[in-house]
Amino acid sequence: MAKSRYEYVKNFERESILLPETYIVIRVDGRGFHKFSSKYDFEKPNDLCALEVMNSAALKLMETIPNIIMAYGDSDEYSFLLQKRCDLFERREFKLISTFASTITAYYQYYWNQSFPAKPLQPDRLPTFDARTVCYPTKELVKDYFRWRQVDCHINNLYNTTFWSLVKSGLTTQEAENRLIGTLSSDKHEILFKEFGINYNNEPEIYKKGTILVRELDFESDVNTDLSKRQAQRLEKKLKKSEIKKLHCDIIKDEFWDCRPWLFS
Amino acid sequence: MAKSRYEYVKNFERESILLPETYIVIRVDGRGFHKFSSKYDFEKPNDLCALEVMNSAALKLMETIPNIIMAYGDSDEYSFLLQKRCDLFERREFKLISTFASTITAYYQYYWNQSFPAKPLQPDRLPTFDARTVCYPTKELVKDYFRWRQVDCHINNLYNTTFWSLVKSGLTTQEAENRLIGTLSSDKHEILFKEFGINYNNEPEIYKKGTILVRELDFESDVNTDLSKRQAQRLEKKLKKSEIKKLHCDIIKDEFWDCRPWLFS
Amino acid sequence: MAKSRYEYVKNFERESILLPETYIVIRVDGRGFHKFSSKYDFEKPNDLCALEVMNSAALKLMETIPNIIMAYGDSDEYSFLLQKRCDLFERREFKLISTFASTITAYYQYYWNQSFPAKPLQPDRLPTFDARTVCYPTKELVKDYFRWRQVDCHINNLYNTTFWSLVKSGLTTQEAENRLIGTLSSDKHEILFKEFGINYNNEPEIYKKGTILVRELDFESDVNTDLSKRQAQRLEKKLKKSEIKKLHCDIIKDEFWDCRPWLFS
Amino acid sequence: MAKSRYEYVKNFERESILLPETYIVIRVDGRGFHKFSSKYDFEKPNDLCALEVMNSAALKLMETIPNIIMAYGDSDEYSFLLQKRCDLFERREFKLISTFASTITAYYQYYWNQSFPAKPLQPDRLPTFDARTVCYPTKELVKDYFRWRQVDCHINNLYNTTFWSLVKSGLTTQEAENRLIGTLSSDKHEILFKEFGINYNNEPEIYKKGTILVRELDFESDVNTDLSKRQAQRLEKKLKKSEIKKLHCDIIKDEFWDCRPWLFS
Repeated sequence: MAKSRYEYVKNFERESILLPETYIVIRVDGRGFHKFSSKYDFEKPNDLCALEVMNSAALKLMETIPNIIMAYGDSDEYSFLLQKRCDLFERREFKLISTFASTITAYYQYYWNQSFPAKPLQPDRLPTFDARTVCYPTKELVKDYFRWRQVDCHINNLYNTTFWSLVKSGLTTQEAENRLIGTLSSDKHEILFKEFGINYNNEPEIYKKGTILVRELDFESDVNTDLSKRQAQRLEKKLKKSEIKKLHCDIIKDEFWDCRPWLFS
Repeated sequence: MAKSRYEYVKNFERESILLPETYIVIRVDGRGFHKFSSKYDFEKPNDLCALEVMNSAALKLMETIPNIIMAYGDSDEYSFLLQKRCDLFERREFKLISTFASTITAYYQYYWNQSFPAKPLQPDRLPTFDARTVCYPTKELVKDYFRWRQVDCHINNLYNTTFWSLVKSGLTTQEAENRLIGTLSSDKHEILFKEFGINYNNEPEIYKKGTILVRELDFESDVNTDLSKRQAQRLEKKLKKSEIKKLHCDIIKDEFWDCRPWLFS
Repeated sequence: MAKSRYEYVKNFERESILLPETYIVIRVDGRGFHKFSSKYDFEKPNDLCALEVMNSAALKLMETIPNIIMAYGDSDEYSFLLQKRCDLFERREFKLISTFASTITAYYQYYWNQSFPAKPLQPDRLPTFDARTVCYPTKELVKDYFRWRQVDCHINNLYNTTFWSLVKSGLTTQEAENRLIGTLSSDKHEILFKEFGINYNNEPEIYKKGTILVRELDFESDVNTDLSKRQAQRLEKKLKKSEIKKLHCDIIKDEFWDCRPWLFS
Repeated sequence: MAKSRYEYVKNFERESILLPETYIVIRVDGRGFHKFSSKYDFEKPNDLCALEVMNSAALKLMETIPNIIMAYGDSDEYSFLLQKRCDLFERREFKLISTFASTITAYYQYYWNQSFPAKPLQPDRLPTFDARTVCYPTKELVKDYFRWRQVDCHINNLYNTTFWSLVKSGLTTQEAENRLIGTLSSDKHEILFKEFGINYNNEPEIYKKGTILVRELDFESDVNTDLSKRQAQRLEKKLKKSEIKKLHCDIIKDEFWDCRPWLFS
C-alpha cells in the first residue's frame, strides 16, 4: 500500500537481536502477585489450584511454541529454555519479550476462568506478567540457571511453610517475620517439626521442587552431540511431536541432565 | 533471604535503559488478528463492538498508568505516549515492553468476555499482543509519529471499505484484491460512490480517523513551556486527576496539538 | 569477489546506531596520562607545550570532520559536539568511537614529535586515548554537558595549582594531599594567596577555563531556529568553510551560547 | 573532589557489557589504506616493509595485553582473540573498541617512523584504524572466524597478484579490472603462470596466508578441557609469560587448532 511522508519516524526504532548460538532463557514473573494472591484468597503457603493454573498456562505456551525444549516454574514465575539454534522471531528481543509476556497472560486468565468460576477476576486486579530474556553461551550455564531457580524455590518454600505455620498458630505476620530473622534452614526444619509436627521432607514435591515441563524422548544411545545434519533434523522433528512431561524432581544433581542429552543437542 | 552459589548466572542479564528526556512511544499490536477476526466472525470491514473492546482495554491501561498522556489506536493496534520526563520502571525497556504487552492482553480478554458472552474465547486462539518502544527526542517527531499512524489508519480503512464492498457484491477475495491493485485513493472513492453509492466521507469518524485518548485540561493561558518547578508539579498533579477524553478527530493538522500544550510540557 | 562458506560468522556482529536527531558528544580521554606526564617530565601543574599538542590534535581532528561544530578540552581530554542532524558513519557507534580514538591518537603523536624533538616517545609509553559517545536530546542538555566539563576543569586546576605550590615549597606529595583534604575552594584561594602570593584569578585563562574550539560565523540576525530547507543548506555550507576559533572563555553563563545560535541550528 | 550541579548529564551515558563466557574477537582495520598506500608509494601487490610495520604494531599490542591469546592479520587489518573468561575492562565495549583502535594507531605510527625514516608521515594522511568487537559463544565459531579471514586473505592476494602483474605488463588499472571480471581462482592461476611465469603456489607464505601471532606452550598431554581451578591458574600464568610466535601457516585445517588446546582452555 501507499506510504506516507511521515513514515520516516520508523527510523527511530531500535532492534536488539540476541546473540546466535546461545541458549535463550525467557523468564516470566507475575506482577504484584502478592496483592493478587490476597485479593483472590489464595491458600497459604501454597494454593495448589492456582499453581495448576500457572502450570496449565505454561504448558499451553510450550505446546504453542515448539522451540521451547523445557521449562521450570514455581509460585508465579516460569523460565522457558529455547534451543541453541532456535531462530524464533529471528531472535528479536522485543518480539520474544512481548510474545511471552502476552501469551502467558492470555493463558493464565483463560485457565483461571476455567478453574475458578467462583472467583471471577476483577478489572482492577487482573493477573499480568513481566518477561525478560537472558542468553547463555554454554550448557553448563543453562543447568546452573535452572539450579538457581530450584534452589530459590526451595528457600522460599521452606520460609513460607514455616512463616504460615507460625501465623496460623496465632502470631501476627510481623511477629512471624521477626521470629524467622536470622534463622538457618535447619532452624526452620526444627520449628516445623517441633512446634507443628511437620516433617518438611514429607511436604509435596510440587511445593519443594517446583514444576519441570520437558519434551521427552526415549533415551537412545544414538543421541550424541555429533549428529549429522540429517540426524539433527530427524531429532528436531521427533522433539516437536514428543510428549511434554510434567515433573517435580530434582534438577540440581546431574542425573536429570545426563538422562536428557537432547536438551542441548 | 539466603543466596545460592548459582546466583552468578544473573550476571548474564542485560538491561537497556531508554535515553532520558526523550518521549517514549509504546505501540502494541495484535498478533495474528487476521485469523483472530475470522475465527470470531468480526463484521467487515469494521467490527464496532470489537473496536470498542480494544478501546476499553487501552483506556483502562491509560487509567492505570498515569504517565501515559495520550494514546492513539485503530484496528488491533494502539500507541501510548509517555511524558518526556517519565521515569516509569526507571525507563527499563524490558519492563516497559512486557508490562504493556501483558496488560493490554489482560484487559482485552477481560472486556471481550464482558462484551461477547456469546463468543467465548477458545484456548487455541486467544488474543495476544506485541509491544515495542521507540524514543523521540522532539515534540515535532512525536506529532509526526501520530500523524503516521492516522494516515495509515485512513489508507487501510479506505482500502478495506472498498475491498469488502466488492466482496459483498459477489467478487471473491482474490478478484477484489486484483481489482484494487494499482488503484489510487481517488479510484477507490469512485468505486465506492459509483458502484455502491457510498460517500466515503460520510463513513463513521471512528473508522476513518481511529480513536484518540487524551488527558484533557481546560486550555489555560498559563500553560507554557517555561514553567517553574512548582508550576510543573501542579500541572503534573492536575493531569493525573484529569479526565481522559475519547476523540475521533484529525491529529494531522496542527490544531489538535496547538490546543494541547500540556502534552509536551 | 567470491564469498566463503565461513562468512556466516559475520552474523554475530552487532551494531548500535545512535538515536537520530539527538546531539552526539564524543569525549576522548588520555589513558594513563598521569604516568605519561611523569615519564615525559611535564611541567606542573600545567605543561603549556603539552596542552598545545592536545589542542593542535583536537583542532586538526575538527578540521578533518566538518560535522564537529565545537569542541572543549582541558588536560588530556576533549569533548566534540556533532550537529543534531549529523549522519557521520550513519551514526554507527563503533565507527564513531574507533575513529575518534584512533584519529586523536594519530594527531597527538604527530604533533608531539613536532613539538618535542628532545623528548622522543618510547614504545612502552605511547600516548593513547579512550573515546565514548553520549546522545543528548536537547540543546539545554548539551550546554549543561559543556558546563559540567568546564566546572570540572576549574575544580581540578584550582586543586592542582595549590597542590603543586605546596609540593614545590617542600611538602611531600602525601603531605600536600593531606593538607588539602576537606578544604573548600575559598581555602585553596587563601593558601595560594597567603602562602605563595598567587592570586588564582590572575592565572592564565587556558588553565582556568580550558580551551574551546568553535566554528564561528558573524552573528547575523537571520540565524534563527526556523530556517527554510534552503537557508539551512546555505548555513551548513558556510559553517563547513568557516574559521575555527580557539577561545579560553566562560561557557557556563548563557552569553557564549546566546551569541552562537548556529551551534544548535 | 567536589561534584557540580551539572553532573547529572552523566545519566545519559550508556554502557554495553559484552556477554560473559563468550570469546571476544576485536578486529582493527585500516581506514582509507588504499589512499594511504598510494600516498606513501607502497610496493604492489604487497609491501613487505609496510606489512612488517603492521605486524610489529600488532605484536606489541599483544605483548601489552596478556589476555590476547592469538591474533591474525593480513594487509591493513588484524583480529585479536581474547580468552573466554577474559574480564579486560569488565568487558565494556566502548573501552575495548577505543583502546584497541587507539593502541594499534599509536604503535603503527611509532614503528612506521622507525622503519621508514625516508617517508615521513604527513599530517593530512596519518594512518588510522577502525575497531569492532564480536562475541562468539563456541570455539568452533572462533575457528571459523579465523578461517574466514584467512580465506579472505587468500582470495584478495590471488586477485591482487594477478591484477598488479597485468598492470605492470602495461594494462591500465581499468583494463586489468575488466580482464579479471568473472574469472575463477583457476583462471587467475593460469594467467599468472602462462603470461607471467609466476607459480602462485611459490609466492611467499606471508602474502598467501597472512600472519598468525600465537602464545605458544609446549604441547603437554595434560592440557585438557577439564582443568582444576589450580591447574587453570597455573596455565594462565604460563601463557602470560609464554613466547608469542609469528607464523604464516594454514589455520583452515584442524591441525593448527588441534595442536593448541590452550587457545580455548
